[in-house]
Amino acid sequence: MKFIRVNMTDKSVQNEEVPEKYLGLGGRGLTSIMINHEVPGTCDPLGPENLLIFAPGSLSGTPLVNTSRISVGAKSPFTGTIKESNAGGSIAADLGRLGITAVIVEGKPEENDLSFLKIDAKGHAQLIAANDYRGMRTYECVASIKKEYGQNQTVMCIGPAGEQLMPIASIQATDVDGRPCRAAGRGGLGAVMGAKGLKALIVDPSGKDADAIADPDAFKEAGKAFARVIKADHMAGQVMPAFGTAALVAPVNSLGAFPCFNARKGVMEGWEKISGEAMAEIIKKRGGKTTHMGCSQCIIHCSNEYVDDQGKYITSSLEYETIWASGGMTGIDDLDTIARFDFMCDDIGIDTMNAGVGIAIAMDSGYRSFGDKEALLEMLEEIAKGSEIGKVFGRGPEAVGRHFNNDHVPAVKGQSIAAYDPRGMKGNGVTFATSPMGADHTAGNVVGEYLTNKLDPLAKKGQAAASKNLQVAMAAVDCTGLCFMAATVLENPEAGIAFLKAINAKFGTDFGPDAIPEMGIRVLKAEREFNKKAGFTAKDDRLPRFFYEEPLSPHNTVFDIGDDELDAVHSWS
Amino acid sequence: MKFIRVNMTDKSVQNEEVPEKYLGLGGRGLTSIMINHEVPGTCDPLGPENLLIFAPGSLSGTPLVNTSRISVGAKSPFTGTIKESNAGGSIAADLGRLGITAVIVEGKPEENDLSFLKIDAKGHAQLIAANDYRGMRTYECVASIKKEYGQNQTVMCIGPAGEQLMPIASIQATDVDGRPCRAAGRGGLGAVMGAKGLKALIVDPSGKDADAIADPDAFKEAGKAFARVIKADHMAGQVMPAFGTAALVAPVNSLGAFPCFNARKGVMEGWEKISGEAMAEIIKKRGGKTTHMGCSQCIIHCSNEYVDDQGKYITSSLEYETIWASGGMTGIDDLDTIARFDFMCDDIGIDTMNAGVGIAIAMDSGYRSFGDKEALLEMLEEIAKGSEIGKVFGRGPEAVGRHFNNDHVPAVKGQSIAAYDPRGMKGNGVTFATSPMGADHTAGNVVGEYLTNKLDPLAKKGQAAASKNLQVAMAAVDCTGLCFMAATVLENPEAGIAFLKAINAKFGTDFGPDAIPEMGIRVLKAEREFNKKAGFTAKDDRLPRFFYEEPLSPHNTVFDIGDDELDAVHSWS
Repeated sequence: MKFIRVNMTDKSVQNEEVPEKYLGLGGRGLTSIMINHEVPGTCDPLGPENLLIFAPGSLSGTPLVNTSRISVGAKSPFTGTIKESNAGGSIAADLGRLGITAVIVEGKPEENDLSFLKIDAKGHAQLIAANDYRGMRTYECVASIKKEYGQNQTVMCIGPAGEQLMPIASIQATDVDGRPCRAAGRGGLGAVMGAKGLKALIVDPSGKDADAIADPDAFKEAGKAFARVIKADHMAGQVMPAFGTAALVAPVNSLGAFPCFNARKGVMEGWEKISGEAMAEIIKKRGGKTTHMGCSQCIIHCSNEYVDDQGKYITSSLEYETIWASGGMTGIDDLDTIARFDFMCDDIGIDTMNAGVGIAIAMDSGYRSFGDKEALLEMLEEIAKGSEIGKVFGRGPEAVGRHFNNDHVPAVKGQSIAAYDPRGMKGNGVTFATSPMGADHTAGNVVGEYLTNKLDPLAKKGQAAASKNLQVAMAAVDCTGLCFMAATVLENPEAGIAFLKAINAKFGTDFGPDAIPEMGIRVLKAEREFNKKAGFTAKDDRLPRFFYEEPLSPHNTVFDIGDDELDAVHSWS
Repeated sequence: MKFIRVNMTDKSVQNEEVPEKYLGLGGRGLTSIMINHEVPGTCDPLGPENLLIFAPGSLSGTPLVNTSRISVGAKSPFTGTIKESNAGGSIAADLGRLGITAVIVEGKPEENDLSFLKIDAKGHAQLIAANDYRGMRTYECVASIKKEYGQNQTVMCIGPAGEQLMPIASIQATDVDGRPCRAAGRGGLGAVMGAKGLKALIVDPSGKDADAIADPDAFKEAGKAFARVIKADHMAGQVMPAFGTAALVAPVNSLGAFPCFNARKGVMEGWEKISGEAMAEIIKKRGGKTTHMGCSQCIIHCSNEYVDDQGKYITSSLEYETIWASGGMTGIDDLDTIARFDFMCDDIGIDTMNAGVGIAIAMDSGYRSFGDKEALLEMLEEIAKGSEIGKVFGRGPEAVGRHFNNDHVPAVKGQSIAAYDPRGMKGNGVTFATSPMGADHTAGNVVGEYLTNKLDPLAKKGQAAASKNLQVAMAAVDCTGLCFMAATVLENPEAGIAFLKAINAKFGTDFGPDAIPEMGIRVLKAEREFNKKAGFTAKDDRLPRFFYEEPLSPHNTVFDIGDDELDAVHSWS
């Protein structure tokens, strides 16, 4: 276990033992607790005082299935809050196998120079000048890196948006096939990477220097049990491999909670054309892959490869939130356009959700028309170029709303909501309002409760409690590297026990079941503490006004969870 | 005494008695206390719940000299705080003479239609459709109104920027010569007027229906004494008529506190070319007016008429803050360009300070070069057109900084500082940080203390106290309609006593000298209370980081007043 600490001001790279206070932490737990300790709350997110921390989950690199999420943390230039954004692919497992607990990037170059941080198979890290890569989009960047340093290299990099310090910039990670199609999309961490002058983190995946597993036999047994539950689970074992996350288009529309036409409606006419079922049919007909392994250790294979009518790769993986942001919100019911949008966002290095929602707001303001497919892709080119209007889109939904004097901006703390309207799925509204990271689709997504009929999405009662429980659970899960799809099975007692056993077997600990929510609460508390230092108050934990005032068809409901209930989500007795 | 209440949703106009709780209030006292009572803190400043209140000072319309300021109040779409912005000209006196305590504009039109509110010589108000005036700049708007309704009409109106809801939009008032060159510039209240669909407030100045003065003889005597002190005062009686407020260019530069080149320096080389002395010389040579009566009741005549080399009117009045914002901040040392900038800002209806500072930030970011005269005026045309880059400028300094990724933005709560660098005049820094209205040049300007050697501008000690006293005094003065220039003599005991006597004689009261600071404190408390409801905390009462970190030449000092001292400014024992 070691930290690699990189100072971009003086270009020094140091290895250090993990300080005692951070021992046992991984993923979001490590990034959030460390940022809360070491980053001044009021600092400029793009200045030298901010840290950009790459931390694989605490179980990443072990043989446990679906533990390939890497957390990237920093003070966000987009929301102004603390932010953790996580991505799949193979880099978490690669770093974990090298025994690297975190890569911590500090300082800021005096000159506007670009570097790579390259970690070799022995875990040695060095900074390499990368000014030749300036302005390069991510697919070309990765291809060039592979040509220069070896085809097997794993990469996490920024595109032109990150270099231009745009608040909606993502950090893109390569999938197991070496394409930069996995995104740490939210919170504008690509802009922090750009401000640090770091174009890419490159990891040689062939090394192995991880700490031994304390009890290998117990670990193996727990891992098998966990994998068995996943395989037997209807959602994780059958629906996800067949349709991917796009499977959600149909049920969320049927519940009337699919925010479309800039969240002016809850059901999209023509949703069938952009559903997971439609997507699977198109991909099958054209010879693409309806199911695909995107991340190391994955046994769910929710990923896909979307191809054009010549069978040529367009993008991987086309996901629910992207289909919503660039399809539902904009009124575009054409999956080919949506797939190209997804590819371009990955290539330019921007979050699909904040980009799509920003464009939807512009359409809603009359700048372009809803349903205009060409406009959608043209706007992305403007962002890449950094034209005047492109910079506005690059700043995200609130900036677009202000630019066009349109206050119908479905965002919290600047960040767009995800594909669940708070008026039609009220628990998701609670999460959007109260998550320490702004509106977020993974911070405590209540959709599973609705789809399994555990909770009425329109009831007032029980929403805040459901959100709170899920925020705690996801904060804990995000420490381990486990992906959201696999985490959905943790409610199954067999899976929960197996997961806890795996943790104990890995670290030689003897945690009881309470340790998991306790970890989640510890993380959330650190995040809230940071936000308080950054100036956030209860008043920031609210949804935009229109969710309280404009009824959403077809149920004609508004968001009506009281401020006291929202404020209680983060009170801990 | 009456209120005219205008509802823009249903186009109703009603007269009402002044409710008891607002009796005796005028100007800023009335706008701020009423907004705090009646406007929800978290409302959308451009939505129907915001009120736009026009309130002449409590002494406006009386024979007391220099009482012609009208306060305009609302929740600001620019700072998000409560805002009072006041303007000179003749409208305050005209409304006061009609016995109109306030015009309160509420609601918001369903359709995007424009109206005039016209008040006739009997004080009757009616809404008139004004869609033909859409897009009209203010000079043309006023000329057309005078043609349509009579040459004597007094007007307060918005230009294209206000119609476009731009956060730096001003409301322009006609001076005694009928030109819309007096601005309620700060806080973007022009955008609130635009959102209300109100193109202009038109007042017939020939009416008279004010309440009688309770003790006319005492009033007359007090008024004479007050006028005598003004005439005898060196600054108000001699410097202001000779050079106007531009007289400050020389001393503020010599103290090293003239923020120039986007506040990167404290002394501008070539300041002599844009000084009050240089301006007076140019105007004299060309046959303009170095001194001029801009406002009703004025005996100071700090105004001027700047003309071109053919003797043709360019603008009135060229003021210190405008010369600084469009000259010092941009490195442009040409008064002709600055005068054209001033005219264009008045004509488009934008605040000269926020416009100039935004352009300076763009220049500092490399978008144009410092000193580029053509670029300065071109940018204004972009704002008027509402082009993409124009909209960015129209949103003010922070938006420009974000657009160009430049965090060297001399603004507090979004609003640009005024022409006194907080590192070279620390008390002004305290006012910028802690005023409930964002950085502001009239909210508690400490410059007089420095010019009269009462306080060392670089000392740490005494700055917070000086700012506090002046914030209280100005909050009280802003209730009465007295202008800032006349208020500077209030420290003279003879003037202070005469002013108090005039108030008592007007209202038949028997206030002691404490009543004035008590009024100021009451107003500030109401403003702070509103801001708290709007979500503001002590963390918002800070200057931008660079003022604390980047030493300002020539004294190489930073702003070093502690947070505890800032927080104590608004604590009242």
